[in-house]
Amino acid sequence: MIIVVSPDATQDEVARIIARIEESGRKAHISEGQERTIIGVIGSDPPELEDMFGSLPHVESVHRVTHPYKMVSRQFNPTDTVIDIGKGVTVGGSELAVMAGPCSIENEGHIVDTARAVQQAGANVLRGGAYKPRSSPYAFRGLGEEGLRCLAQASKETGMPVITELMTVRDVDVVAKHADVIQIGARNMQNFNLLDEVGALKKPVMLKRAMSGQIEEWLLAAEYILSAGNPNVILCERGIRTFETAYRNTFDVNAIPLVKELSHLPVIADPSHGTGKWGLVAPVARAGIAAGADGLMIEVHPHPEAALSDGAQSLTYESFTKMMLSVAGIAAAVGRTLSGVKATAAAR
Amino acid sequence: MIIVVSPDATQDEVARIIARIEESGRKAHISEGQERTIIGVIGSDPPELEDMFGSLPHVESVHRVTHPYKMVSRQFNPTDTVIDIGKGVTVGGSELAVMAGPCSIENEGHIVDTARAVQQAGANVLRGGAYKPRSSPYAFRGLGEEGLRCLAQASKETGMPVITELMTVRDVDVVAKHADVIQIGARNMQNFNLLDEVGALKKPVMLKRAMSGQIEEWLLAAEYILSAGNPNVILCERGIRTFETAYRNTFDVNAIPLVKELSHLPVIADPSHGTGKWGLVAPVARAGIAAGADGLMIEVHPHPEAALSDGAQSLTYESFTKMMLSVAGIAAAVGRTLSGVKATAAAR
Amino acid sequence: MIIVVSPDATQDEVARIIARIEESGRKAHISEGQERTIIGVIGSDPPELEDMFGSLPHVESVHRVTHPYKMVSRQFNPTDTVIDIGKGVTVGGSELAVMAGPCSIENEGHIVDTARAVQQAGANVLRGGAYKPRSSPYAFRGLGEEGLRCLAQASKETGMPVITELMTVRDVDVVAKHADVIQIGARNMQNFNLLDEVGALKKPVMLKRAMSGQIEEWLLAAEYILSAGNPNVILCERGIRTFETAYRNTFDVNAIPLVKELSHLPVIADPSHGTGKWGLVAPVARAGIAAGADGLMIEVHPHPEAALSDGAQSLTYESFTKMMLSVAGIAAAVGRTLSGVKATAAAR
Amino acid sequence: MIIVVSPDATQDEVARIIARIEESGRKAHISEGQERTIIGVIGSDPPELEDMFGSLPHVESVHRVTHPYKMVSRQFNPTDTVIDIGKGVTVGGSELAVMAGPCSIENEGHIVDTARAVQQAGANVLRGGAYKPRSSPYAFRGLGEEGLRCLAQASKETGMPVITELMTVRDVDVVAKHADVIQIGARNMQNFNLLDEVGALKKPVMLKRAMSGQIEEWLLAAEYILSAGNPNVILCERGIRTFETAYRNTFDVNAIPLVKELSHLPVIADPSHGTGKWGLVAPVARAGIAAGADGLMIEVHPHPEAALSDGAQSLTYESFTKMMLSVAGIAAAVGRTLSGVKATAAAR
Repeated sequence: MIIVVSPDATQDEVARIIARIEESGRKAHISEGQERTIIGVIGSDPPELEDMFGSLPHVESVHRVTHPYKMVSRQFNPTDTVIDIGKGVTVGGSELAVMAGPCSIENEGHIVDTARAVQQAGANVLRGGAYKPRSSPYAFRGLGEEGLRCLAQASKETGMPVITELMTVRDVDVVAKHADVIQIGARNMQNFNLLDEVGALKKPVMLKRAMSGQIEEWLLAAEYILSAGNPNVILCERGIRTFETAYRNTFDVNAIPLVKELSHLPVIADPSHGTGKWGLVAPVARAGIAAGADGLMIEVHPHPEAALSDGAQSLTYESFTKMMLSVAGIAAAVGRTLSGVKATAAAR
Repeated sequence: MIIVVSPDATQDEVARIIARIEESGRKAHISEGQERTIIGVIGSDPPELEDMFGSLPHVESVHRVTHPYKMVSRQFNPTDTVIDIGKGVTVGGSELAVMAGPCSIENEGHIVDTARAVQQAGANVLRGGAYKPRSSPYAFRGLGEEGLRCLAQASKETGMPVITELMTVRDVDVVAKHADVIQIGARNMQNFNLLDEVGALKKPVMLKRAMSGQIEEWLLAAEYILSAGNPNVILCERGIRTFETAYRNTFDVNAIPLVKELSHLPVIADPSHGTGKWGLVAPVARAGIAAGADGLMIEVHPHPEAALSDGAQSLTYESFTKMMLSVAGIAAAVGRTLSGVKATAAAR
Repeated sequence: MIIVVSPDATQDEVARIIARIEESGRKAHISEGQERTIIGVIGSDPPELEDMFGSLPHVESVHRVTHPYKMVSRQFNPTDTVIDIGKGVTVGGSELAVMAGPCSIENEGHIVDTARAVQQAGANVLRGGAYKPRSSPYAFRGLGEEGLRCLAQASKETGMPVITELMTVRDVDVVAKHADVIQIGARNMQNFNLLDEVGALKKPVMLKRAMSGQIEEWLLAAEYILSAGNPNVILCERGIRTFETAYRNTFDVNAIPLVKELSHLPVIADPSHGTGKWGLVAPVARAGIAAGADGLMIEVHPHPEAALSDGAQSLTYESFTKMMLSVAGIAAAVGRTLSGVKATAAAR
Repeated sequence: MIIVVSPDATQDEVARIIARIEESGRKAHISEGQERTIIGVIGSDPPELEDMFGSLPHVESVHRVTHPYKMVSRQFNPTDTVIDIGKGVTVGGSELAVMAGPCSIENEGHIVDTARAVQQAGANVLRGGAYKPRSSPYAFRGLGEEGLRCLAQASKETGMPVITELMTVRDVDVVAKHADVIQIGARNMQNFNLLDEVGALKKPVMLKRAMSGQIEEWLLAAEYILSAGNPNVILCERGIRTFETAYRNTFDVNAIPLVKELSHLPVIADPSHGTGKWGLVAPVARAGIAAGADGLMIEVHPHPEAALSDGAQSLTYESFTKMMLSVAGIAAAVGRTLSGVKATAAAR
């Protein structure tokens, strides 16, 4: 950590800052510049330190020089983490993971039918929400445990692993029982108690980035899970909130290569939430894979205009199938595979 | 709800949109413009409707014409809500509520001493965190239940009501037992299960705005609590996340008068989080009251540079006392009172 | 335009709104909803109208139902515009335009050498700044007219068309004389007088999106140029300003397919400014092309660490060459060509 | 400047960084931390330096420790600057400056009438736009020179100094001839050529903050004007662009005290643009003064619903008069005066 001293500080005042650093058991390394004195603090730097030194009299600014996360960083683990989510699917290797299905599970027939359709088009993981975070208390909030049962049935019939959202610590057991991957939604990225509890499991967790989550905060949220004992974390970029009102969210494509550089964890792109408009889903899906994502999460519904949630951003079976063909072309161009998409189709 | 039809839609395609509206049990009112056909949808408009109609073929855009919230709106209740939080303090009347104290409770002596100091300066509610949301898993996360016990002791010694944060449904009972007001933090504004559970209590709840929470989302989050049965909700503006890096958050002063116009609920200004810099706290506190806030939430610490969290934004006893004098002047100018601040002092 | 009347308006007050609409020479089409009266305004809707009706007493909100731009819209011209920028290069057709070169022109040798290197790697347009917008008055602001002369020389030696930035109306003639494409930078997207003046030319203009420019504002800025008589406008997405501090800007990949849907104008992706970090340039360039961009603008410098500006986001000759190979693979996957990249190399 | 070296750098690689620093004529001061080597760079630090050292191999990050601006900073000039704008009005002293009038000048009668009304209510500077930046080329763009003539007439009849916007270098002479203060609008905050040209005058300049202008960029834009020779710069906070769509802009009240701390220049609050909604103007005006602003800029129109621009955010004569009374109370509370508001009225 580096402390920049105000230019108006006297020698005595600088000495008092140094005394505080030494009291804390660290060493101070002084550097007298032309305009300002700079003090390098040598020793451990827990998160508290920044605030503590930042509020000392005559300290102008404090600069952290190390990343605040450890276990999620590429320095801690230089090799890409590949996560086995079961039923023959891994996330983070050369094969892309494509998680597709409806926003909300509406009934057994609906989820089973959608599962078959997305599998046919090349998806290898089934998504479906049983517990739905909704801005309004008057909106449809999901089928709950009955939805999980329908999802399990669809998994059984197709052999696909399933991912579904967990919203509260009260549902950890029931969700962990039915899901192959537990999704932590954007609104819960910093629900630290929930992170603690999924960190106590071994089940893979997909952690979505918060609407206004900085990359560093997102990696620290993942660090909560890893440091609690669960190494099986998948990140998911799903768009951020900006000033632009032409789309629901702004898909942050920069995040994909930066997170791959900073961390060893796999990253999934979610262009459905990342755009909020079905017409933009396919081009942004291609962009995500071209930028290095390890897979996609896509909302698909047999009849988007009748969906109980997120209809405006859902693809039909037909548009999803078409999207998968174009994504397969991009996958090949960046040295990844999408085995579910028939080779002849992909070749067009 | 208003549906704008794409200019390329044929008569038949418009007819199909109308048929869908009527199938849903609503009436369609058609208006042929020069460039576009507009359809007014008459009937109930649950949140689903926007997405449902928005994904119909040839629908260009959908405009909601009513607010999605009801019980929190000023139309539902035209009179300002005044909430009795106990121990002789109300929030929302002509007397301002000033909630002051440390970010984290560090030990009993620390909180009792701070309580006395802030009371002396004119505060009427004691704040203090026992459960702390921290970006890093390695930061100090609060004393937990022991902290609540210290807080209760400080309340007993000073007679002040206390406010403290609840982070997870697992702690609802213990927090409700010790707190006079339960705080829901910014990161939990859309933790809908937590909102459901505090909605089932009668205890006053202070709901902070999320870092990227739109006014409408914030009011809908309050609606969760009211619609679950708890009418005692206080809102708290604590700064939003913007592109500006010169402060930790950007205090959104516009939100104060707008929320007072849209809703009957009281609103508290939190300039400590709203700026993140102690030097800006007093001027922004004055601004909040001048704009119509019903009170303040301020972080105060005997020795900010030794605080276990948020030192950089905490006031000392001395700077808090000075701030209170200046706030009392503003309060008088807008027809509010701050009885705790000695009249002679306020007159300077 | 649709006017939503406040629920508290009396019959008389609604009648007064209608009278104002009719006075303005438009027709009012009334629709009585369950909770609110809605008035469709039929007739021309210049930009003033929104504000004018929005400030009438008892008007709750005003919704525009048409786009405010005309000549740039796809409805006005359903076919993709292809712009001939001279020296055998077009922008907007199946061949991608790759504009590469240094941020600032430093001297003749520097720009000629860079031109040859980027041409060798497959670029078909040379970029280079002679007039540089710099946040600080103390930074290097470009060589000015001497820089334009060096650029012209590089164009002559390589046969490549050149693009360079115009910052002020005082330099219109000299920049138009030397440049094949005039660049309007992000900070000048809404410098309306400058737009008027380049609109009076026939020379192609590349219009960068402002740091906080909404898509609609960007298209309206292009409309200034088209409506002034110059149809040769190329759009350029160069990243927007968000809360994320891990990169200089956030490349908005959503903008690419949306602008292609709303407008017939070609769109270039600038991942150098869109990320501000050289390590992210190649993946984000691939993403831009995968999302449908008509080309790229890339900063390349022989020795980035010695560059007079933007060193941190510049590619070396070697990294640019490598990037072009990977972009060629993506181009092929989306049915575009990049003829400058040798087929054998692209095949790897 | 501080350079943080990547942990993977060898001794030789560190030596090469040091060699580069010394080659540039600066001294390197090395500090070996537990995890990283930190190098303090001692010597001048022009803006280029950050990029130059930031792109050296094995440099992880670069931290600037001095502010990049000089003449605008409070260290350069510790005393508040008070600017005499003529006709007996100063900006920056204990008397507040209230600049009021219509967004656009519509004709002579309109501006003269408004001038008298705002003067009567206590304003001491007349505002009015002759050249209007408008998002759409089809909107009313102002009366131009004829508008300036009308403004001059209103100034003559009331004795008030006038402020009006300058949009292009082509109009510098004509605007400087008629205006007492030249306004540079938000969209031109980084129109560096325009800043250079008003810097060559002595006429006071009011520089509005850009929609996404960071405080540092805003102060650097002011530095352009001061460093070009014109010390008479007034800053104006007019709201920033955020994710919130409930208002046109988000008034950044934090900016007021921070800019007063960092700089000696006076700051004006513009709650009309800062909110975009007339109902929020008065409370946000009070907030601005309570936070320490040196004055206000307010849009006033005799009939807002008939205004040619910005009707939705304009006050009527009556609401402006009422606002001034409430602002006078706040002014008194913070030790400022507003002499134009009758003492008896202010006391209510």
